[in-house]
Amino acid sequence: MNFSSKLLENAVNEFSALPGIGQKTALRLVLHLLNQPNAEVEKFSNALTVLKRDIRFCEVCFNISDHPVCQICNSIKRDKSLVCVVEDTRDVMAIENTGTYQGVYHVLGGLISPMDGVGPSDLTIDRLVERVSMGGIKEVILAISATMEGDTTIFYLYKKLKDSGIQISTIARGIAFGGELEYVDEITLGRSIATRIPYENSLAR
Amino acid sequence: MNFSSKLLENAVNEFSALPGIGQKTALRLVLHLLNQPNAEVEKFSNALTVLKRDIRFCEVCFNISDHPVCQICNSIKRDKSLVCVVEDTRDVMAIENTGTYQGVYHVLGGLISPMDGVGPSDLTIDRLVERVSMGGIKEVILAISATMEGDTTIFYLYKKLKDSGIQISTIARGIAFGGELEYVDEITLGRSIATRIPYENSLAR
Repeated sequence: MNFSSKLLENAVNEFSALPGIGQKTALRLVLHLLNQPNAEVEKFSNALTVLKRDIRFCEVCFNISDHPVCQICNSIKRDKSLVCVVEDTRDVMAIENTGTYQGVYHVLGGLISPMDGVGPSDLTIDRLVERVSMGGIKEVILAISATMEGDTTIFYLYKKLKDSGIQISTIARGIAFGGELEYVDEITLGRSIATRIPYENSLAR
Repeated sequence: MNFSSKLLENAVNEFSALPGIGQKTALRLVLHLLNQPNAEVEKFSNALTVLKRDIRFCEVCFNISDHPVCQICNSIKRDKSLVCVVEDTRDVMAIENTGTYQGVYHVLGGLISPMDGVGPSDLTIDRLVERVSMGGIKEVILAISATMEGDTTIFYLYKKLKDSGIQISTIARGIAFGGELEYVDEITLGRSIATRIPYENSLAR
């Protein structure tokens, strides 16, 4: 693109470095911000600076939090003996939205991915092992995506935790509710038959 | 969405106020920025603040420019008697990319849109009339989108300029190169027959 202004080009380049934002979209966003009052643009760039400067992670579960210990870890209503291990804060939000989970979380901060240079030491795995070894935890649920990186991470976590004597589970994989059999991929369908459960168990809430 | 942090929520809300960015995308973008080094986020929010603070518009054509008069208006190679009127800087970039236009521009800064509260006085229409009245301009090309707002703006500009004695043209509307007749909408097809041109003229470059 031929920009008439270096300042404009810089701003567009910053936006198009974001995931899923191309140059045309970036230009549209920047021109939109340019049309906003000064105070609005100030507020936008401030929100980012403040977020990056003041962001804190819960000392217990490593979820993003404004307090040293997050609301969930602090709540007396949550079952501290049940820990759900997830990739990032988006997964916590998704599970919280179901409104059915009463345990606490452990946020890994990513998945093991040698291709992207992410090893176990870049994640909060050691802290999870520590948490488990401190006692009081009965079950760890690995609620991690069914991708290659996810499976690698699950396998690594299982190896690390299997001698601690606690129950280790993974979330059920199978056909989504409302899903039609003929459109399900072969692997999911095959595994969902292999890992079939008694009908009475499928009624559990 | 249930955010675990007010700071996170603020940043996501700022992003999702941008056109075409929903809450989920905003969250993805903010988490991406959170994973970047401090300096990167600083650079991002700085680029916006500096852009908004230091942005200038060319005194002649009102295109975004780092200098008082933009490169195009300053160039001795451009034909100053031919002025192409466009909505915003994106249109200037699109026309410049064709590599075929040798005249100069006039950037309106928007289109007349009573629904959005944009009237003629919010645009640089008066400055265009002034520019024409100062003499030296032979033709004004209205290169404006074929939308309701665009047509309203074209009609208003035509009324304002028609007594100035200069040639007023609009860009040709019709079937795009490579377009197949059967997929063209009825209005475009009908108008392209009504406004047909002699074959020799269609060869003009």
